[in-house]
Amino acid sequence: MQNLANLEKNLGYKFKDEQLLIKALTHKSCKKPYNNERLEFLGDAVMDLIVAEYLCKKFRKTDEGDLSKLRAALVNEKSFSNLAKSVNLGDFLFISAAEEHNKGRFKASLLSDAFEAVMGAIYLESGLESCTKIALNLLENEYKSISLDALAKDYKTMLQEITQAKFGLTPEYKLISTSGPDHQKEFKMAVFLDEKKYGEAVGKSKKDAEQQAAKITIDEIKKVKP
Amino acid sequence: MQNLANLEKNLGYKFKDEQLLIKALTHKSCKKPYNNERLEFLGDAVMDLIVAEYLCKKFRKTDEGDLSKLRAALVNEKSFSNLAKSVNLGDFLFISAAEEHNKGRFKASLLSDAFEAVMGAIYLESGLESCTKIALNLLENEYKSISLDALAKDYKTMLQEITQAKFGLTPEYKLISTSGPDHQKEFKMAVFLDEKKYGEAVGKSKKDAEQQAAKITIDEIKKVKP
Repeated sequence: MQNLANLEKNLGYKFKDEQLLIKALTHKSCKKPYNNERLEFLGDAVMDLIVAEYLCKKFRKTDEGDLSKLRAALVNEKSFSNLAKSVNLGDFLFISAAEEHNKGRFKASLLSDAFEAVMGAIYLESGLESCTKIALNLLENEYKSISLDALAKDYKTMLQEITQAKFGLTPEYKLISTSGPDHQKEFKMAVFLDEKKYGEAVGKSKKDAEQQAAKITIDEIKKVKP
Repeated sequence: MQNLANLEKNLGYKFKDEQLLIKALTHKSCKKPYNNERLEFLGDAVMDLIVAEYLCKKFRKTDEGDLSKLRAALVNEKSFSNLAKSVNLGDFLFISAAEEHNKGRFKASLLSDAFEAVMGAIYLESGLESCTKIALNLLENEYKSISLDALAKDYKTMLQEITQAKFGLTPEYKLISTSGPDHQKEFKMAVFLDEKKYGEAVGKSKKDAEQQAAKITIDEIKKVKP
């Protein structure tokens, strides 16, 4: 068994109740009388609020729609598994032999869940303020620049996540036309899903036009009820 | 214009910054330089955490799945619009003439959004603890008994909400068979959606069997990706 003090050092937080930390690290596969699922439920809500408040304070003019997109980029399984990895959380998980065999210690879902559970545990022990400091420290280390450009505007990635989840499809981008003289050419790109054309947009580079076309497509898809 | 002091009395909270309360009550239809959307974004996360923590503390043995269902029953547009009505929030909303004409003051969506925004505003001004007291006071007044029986186990209502949102269908319940002697009859009921059979279950009353069949169907539907 790993020395939990090392994890506490990585987190920058010393637990008052070590049993609570152990619970947060215990996957249900262990079949113990306790596991980290309830703490994960709580920690999920804690992280949602921490990130929502952080974004509201950082982006004072940004509307609710873009704040939601920013949050979605930060609050998700992949992002939380990265935060978990940044403190080597995987090394400290308690999992069954079968789960060990399945490389559970490296699964994004287990790591993300345990990260939320640890945050839930810190919240229970020390309240929102302590938990916020720790979570933002980890987030800011992981995302050196949390900016609208870096996050909200990567519409291509976001569109791909949406279309794969919803339709099992990867978006394709096709050049529709170019215009303007050589030194200030403009490109019209369109998004295609399964050969059907969705959003299209014009930009000074193909990449810009693709980003805008992806954004338009996201808005279109969101209007359609699942 | 209504006297905002009356709303503060209903909430049991006096705002330090009246402008913040006004912002929380201002619908985007007013086309003012400010509206309540960002506060709603924050308040939504605040309410999620308040309810998650409340349920964790109240139901110490309940697993994460049932806690999620309980939260879903408390944290939704209808529930929040009821809380809004309990403090007559509608009377204090700032909305456009067109929205007034559309009975916007009585719409569940506007009421729920403004309720979240008011909670977000209280959180910003006075922190989580004050906000928790106010929110739980309103919740407990509205839901005299927040119990697993009353909330989580109303699977029929929950299923109907899910199937209407997802498929635009209302579930039907059909008696499949009865068994046992007259004094201890058992009923097998099944859920049908658009003539297709989903979950079925046996119970000592038709109602019990329907609830269990609804629960099974919810679990089945949740496994299918949208």
